[in-house]
Amino acid sequence: MKIVAVGLGLIGGSLCKAIKKHTNHLVGGIDIDRKTVKMALSQNAIDYEAKDVSEADITIVSLFPPTIISFIKENADLFKEGSIVIDTGGIKKAIVDEVTPILAERGVTFIGVHPMAGREFSGFEYSLDNLFDNASFIMTPIESTPQEEIHIIEDLAYSIHFKKVVKATPEEHDRIIAFTSQLAHVVSNAYIKSPTHQQQLGFSAGSFQDLTRVAKLNENMWTPLFLMNKEPLLFEIDYIMARLGEYRDAIANNDSETLRSLLRDGRILKENTPVD
Amino acid sequence: MKIVAVGLGLIGGSLCKAIKKHTNHLVGGIDIDRKTVKMALSQNAIDYEAKDVSEADITIVSLFPPTIISFIKENADLFKEGSIVIDTGGIKKAIVDEVTPILAERGVTFIGVHPMAGREFSGFEYSLDNLFDNASFIMTPIESTPQEEIHIIEDLAYSIHFKKVVKATPEEHDRIIAFTSQLAHVVSNAYIKSPTHQQQLGFSAGSFQDLTRVAKLNENMWTPLFLMNKEPLLFEIDYIMARLGEYRDAIANNDSETLRSLLRDGRILKENTPVD
Repeated sequence: MKIVAVGLGLIGGSLCKAIKKHTNHLVGGIDIDRKTVKMALSQNAIDYEAKDVSEADITIVSLFPPTIISFIKENADLFKEGSIVIDTGGIKKAIVDEVTPILAERGVTFIGVHPMAGREFSGFEYSLDNLFDNASFIMTPIESTPQEEIHIIEDLAYSIHFKKVVKATPEEHDRIIAFTSQLAHVVSNAYIKSPTHQQQLGFSAGSFQDLTRVAKLNENMWTPLFLMNKEPLLFEIDYIMARLGEYRDAIANNDSETLRSLLRDGRILKENTPVD
Repeated sequence: MKIVAVGLGLIGGSLCKAIKKHTNHLVGGIDIDRKTVKMALSQNAIDYEAKDVSEADITIVSLFPPTIISFIKENADLFKEGSIVIDTGGIKKAIVDEVTPILAERGVTFIGVHPMAGREFSGFEYSLDNLFDNASFIMTPIESTPQEEIHIIEDLAYSIHFKKVVKATPEEHDRIIAFTSQLAHVVSNAYIKSPTHQQQLGFSAGSFQDLTRVAKLNENMWTPLFLMNKEPLLFEIDYIMARLGEYRDAIANNDSETLRSLLRDGRILKENTPVD
């Protein structure tokens, strides 16, 4: 198959490298940055620079979410009839809702996808051919998505060494990702703002490092992701704030029984979390 | 020197193993659990079971904080004149204030200590002779603490491969530890309580694992630690709740400029955090 990757950043670049490593598909690349295209060619992450998406059997769009939508809309007439378009954005409903009917009209199948891996760095220079080894590949087909196209993308995911393919509706994806990923970034970014942070040198062990690792985020990517997933994310932020208030009140009241029971409940939930 | 370790759990056991590995001090052990003492002897973590603290040049008390205080009070008359007693509890002011004068009356020097390492497991069976390699050793001497005794404990810490010794007042220690360690455990334990947690399988990447690792805590140890450090911890919980509210409001108002700026501030703070 001919695969064209639009956007050769951390995710797009890593997908290209994994496809080139594990399959015989022909991979074309598109990126607005000339240097990135050259680097991708020189590292053999892509076979050629594609002039557009018109020859692709599968197009993979790995741009920031608002740009995913605008790119697909602007290029709608170029996609080949019968081809498949996937995106790799961190939210799905807003994208799936907007681009699916536009492409369907032209005989093109859109499937939203979310590869569950990342790094604290962005850009092609950090892309890895094994970034997705052991990661989940989330797909959000909808009722009208043809089974055959779902299978093609599923096979592609397994062939490039994703550990498992998980299917969810776009709404389910967004609701769960608000908790597992978006909330983690908000909490971590908020955590580090304490004025005490200035004095932490020598006083931090693993727990501080864990809690603040993802504070280093790309605000230009995450701002639209959060705003495009407003309701589920607000639910999670409100929920953890209410929970934190419970510990707070137990401590303020010297209520050791309530505090112990709050901590025990959290420990048990963690102990019963199946390893992903 | 003769060192007696009281409490052979994760921390006490690991200190004994490190002392035996790197020094020639004679190490006696005391633990209320018979099986633990046997295990420590058979693994050569201690040289002998000590009947009490009376022969120790240095006594290391690694019990839960309330028990540290009661143990030292109950055994006050047994400590050898001129000897040094250290504890390894996670809060310092409450302990230092209470036991220092009692021991000083008997010619015994007390120094509060906090080795900055841990694991998600507790008990001697998880103790490691290298748990403290690359960790900070925090000491909280006070004005009346003799310099010579400070040097003896500092030398001991470096000799068993702590990366660095950090000195702080008990108050400073407690204020900073509320942020770097206690808040991390509260937030992590609260995080996992979302009802969405039940559906996370397949949707979690590193950020979720990081944020929830220390949710698995020993509530019997942490409950008194939190209550004995009430004011600093309340400050940190209130502070992060207020910050979370700012992100919350920016998202609720679709205020992308404020949200981007909140995220950027956090990213810059993280980028400028010196690696500990």
